[in-house]
Amino acid sequence: MSKPSIPKGTRDFLPSEMLRRNYIFDTIKEQFRLFGYEQIETPSQELMSTLMGKYGEEGDRLVFRILDSGNWLSKLSDEDILERNVAHLTTKVAEKGLRYDLTVPFARFVVQHKSEISLPFKRYQIQPVWRADRPQKGRYREFYQCDADVVGTDSLLMEVEFVELAKAIFSKLQLKVVMLLNNRKILAGIAESIGIPERLTEMTVAMDKFDKVGLEGVIEELKKCEFKEGCITALKPFLLLEGDNEAQLSQLEVLLKASSIGLEGIQEMRFILSHLPQEVEEAFEVRFDSRLARGLGYYTGTIMEIKSHEVEIGSISGGGRYDNLTGIFGEKGLSGVGISFGAERIYDVLEKLDRFPKELEGSCQVLFANLGEEETQYLLPLLRNLREKGISCMVYPDCAKLKKQLSFADNRKIPYVVIAGSSEMSEGKVTLKNMTTGVQEALAKERLVEQWMK
Amino acid sequence: MSKPSIPKGTRDFLPSEMLRRNYIFDTIKEQFRLFGYEQIETPSQELMSTLMGKYGEEGDRLVFRILDSGNWLSKLSDEDILERNVAHLTTKVAEKGLRYDLTVPFARFVVQHKSEISLPFKRYQIQPVWRADRPQKGRYREFYQCDADVVGTDSLLMEVEFVELAKAIFSKLQLKVVMLLNNRKILAGIAESIGIPERLTEMTVAMDKFDKVGLEGVIEELKKCEFKEGCITALKPFLLLEGDNEAQLSQLEVLLKASSIGLEGIQEMRFILSHLPQEVEEAFEVRFDSRLARGLGYYTGTIMEIKSHEVEIGSISGGGRYDNLTGIFGEKGLSGVGISFGAERIYDVLEKLDRFPKELEGSCQVLFANLGEEETQYLLPLLRNLREKGISCMVYPDCAKLKKQLSFADNRKIPYVVIAGSSEMSEGKVTLKNMTTGVQEALAKERLVEQWMK
Repeated sequence: MSKPSIPKGTRDFLPSEMLRRNYIFDTIKEQFRLFGYEQIETPSQELMSTLMGKYGEEGDRLVFRILDSGNWLSKLSDEDILERNVAHLTTKVAEKGLRYDLTVPFARFVVQHKSEISLPFKRYQIQPVWRADRPQKGRYREFYQCDADVVGTDSLLMEVEFVELAKAIFSKLQLKVVMLLNNRKILAGIAESIGIPERLTEMTVAMDKFDKVGLEGVIEELKKCEFKEGCITALKPFLLLEGDNEAQLSQLEVLLKASSIGLEGIQEMRFILSHLPQEVEEAFEVRFDSRLARGLGYYTGTIMEIKSHEVEIGSISGGGRYDNLTGIFGEKGLSGVGISFGAERIYDVLEKLDRFPKELEGSCQVLFANLGEEETQYLLPLLRNLREKGISCMVYPDCAKLKKQLSFADNRKIPYVVIAGSSEMSEGKVTLKNMTTGVQEALAKERLVEQWMK
Repeated sequence: MSKPSIPKGTRDFLPSEMLRRNYIFDTIKEQFRLFGYEQIETPSQELMSTLMGKYGEEGDRLVFRILDSGNWLSKLSDEDILERNVAHLTTKVAEKGLRYDLTVPFARFVVQHKSEISLPFKRYQIQPVWRADRPQKGRYREFYQCDADVVGTDSLLMEVEFVELAKAIFSKLQLKVVMLLNNRKILAGIAESIGIPERLTEMTVAMDKFDKVGLEGVIEELKKCEFKEGCITALKPFLLLEGDNEAQLSQLEVLLKASSIGLEGIQEMRFILSHLPQEVEEAFEVRFDSRLARGLGYYTGTIMEIKSHEVEIGSISGGGRYDNLTGIFGEKGLSGVGISFGAERIYDVLEKLDRFPKELEGSCQVLFANLGEEETQYLLPLLRNLREKGISCMVYPDCAKLKKQLSFADNRKIPYVVIAGSSEMSEGKVTLKNMTTGVQEALAKERLVEQWMK
């Protein structure tokens, strides 16, 4: 029999990994809760009609399809098959697919349950998504997304809140990050004022690379796209704003003075920055960045992105405002804004910096050694007593050599072992062994629980 | 555009449902942790070679298949297709399927990660599973399982532990339940002593129905299966054991005196019962039941089942010992025992009994009303202060009529609203409105936080 395995691009999680993953999820969840977000869940499977056409051509191809149950073949005529149009046949044999992200299901949810929710609706959702991407380092076919969104308000206080939410989460995770902010209206204003409003997307794709390729690289890219010389010259000052956030916005205000949409974007940015707590925090920098675009896609206002200040790994969080998300499901006029935390990358950052807490909740605290039937009967009431006090503990199931049991405790990183042989039993005692220091002490059995109640 | 929907047999969960579901999962998880179980997760997709042949013919059909990415059609020749052998073609176009339960992936996990885990391995796993079953009331195509298992020990102390674990969980959930115990060895002994060892499965299938159809029903069933009259007569006393657990075991001991395997089962049952805490608990009855079989399947020793004492809904938890689970993946000789908690049915029971806690963690505690720009700037520092103290709160995003904001708080069941208009601001105060009683009081703004720190 060959050794069993799992599909490529998927992962098993060992207990030590689960503790660390839960630490991240729990930290994020706790802040979502504090900020008044309510949790929802949607099914793993969605109808293909819900998923298709929402993620671009590439995305459509990466959706995992569920083969219809029963005789799927009976839906295909011989002619159908022999024509071998795979895209067409796929739609006939797979009416369901696996969730590709959390945003589209959320939009579907809002429209479907409109009468059961109160607007503005603040929801969070932490669930896996699936993509039939080519697996590579750090990219998986199943991974979790952690999203918080509000729909039903265009108040910029929500953007303010998302900045604070991100600050709270990364502060709890003890990570130094920078949060970049921009606004699609500013980008539109730039395109307008350099005379190419219709080429906004191309322009922003090039600008977004500034971080990686610098000014020369961006110019190179623009030339490749056959932007005119005058246009590139006009764009340069927008790429080279200087000074702090307000200084940059002031320069921008002059440059964009003829663009009403651009000025609107500046005003929104100023609102957000002026409503944030004004203390300067070294660990959480908020930086306006006129080059940030994040693929743009459905964003219509603020654009947000968070990067680690300590590890180079790309963005670990991002989001923005989209004015018409639910429009794709027939519900117009609901503005939304949301942020997604990249738990998998945050994991890699914490791992690289060795910044997971040393003691993660969930591990067993005490192993009761098993030296025989009578000894176990002596210890079980003590074990039950500890458990009632909320201390995680277990008895070694088999009567094995003590050495083997101690090495089990070591492997499982259980910090204490309680031992009782005939001498302890005759005196009403137990031996408590500290596995970190190796120190053993004899205790009256009634006093055992006190060790954890200090 | 038609109203969006989700695949049949699947569900969206609204915030109020999530709070209740999490209450159940968290209660179960906390006890798993206290009993020393470690969490793992496995991928939603498994290779079909892992899943096939493990759940019987019916189960094989109910596994959801993932259509291979890319051009799946190219794997089929014209001849293949025109032959229209759907079972054969399915294996060619779908090499992966969705997890059908947590037990088989766990067995695969243990074999695959043997060098990374310490035996005995106590693991828990709470994840959804998928079955292409016909949807009906209370039966879904996606639902969660909550399993705890130990592998690598045949110690009966583990069975003792599972009884205590179940007791702890249902006590926390405030549900009165009965835990039924039996042992496959006892069932084998019965089959042996009535002279039909080879018809064990048929016999137990009939016996297992006793609860629903009574003695006459079981006899009917046995006759239908063409059991001989003498055999049925010999079986009767085994179906009608009387008295408490020990009394029943004593009667059984006499009946099974010629069956060594039967006597072994009795001995195991006595070990378990004698190692349990001896207080009698009305809310958690442990009852030996010689008729319990639970489909038998892979169980080789103890069989466990839990039923509500208050709501008729079938079993809400079950499990047992299986001596060779990992054998299917080539790792022989690992005995295991496990229990599964039916979270979805437990939900229905708690709902029916109206026994969910009134206040579930996760709901927002305070809404800060939004009466304008200046008022909001006045309130934001107070809101931040509350959040830092761990109190979930939010500002109403838009400056709307107070009545609308109060009704939002009502809908979201937010118990307090903080209001500040120009008069409060001029006096350095806020108005705190208790939404349950309707009482309002004016407070110095510095004293707001005290309301939650009592």
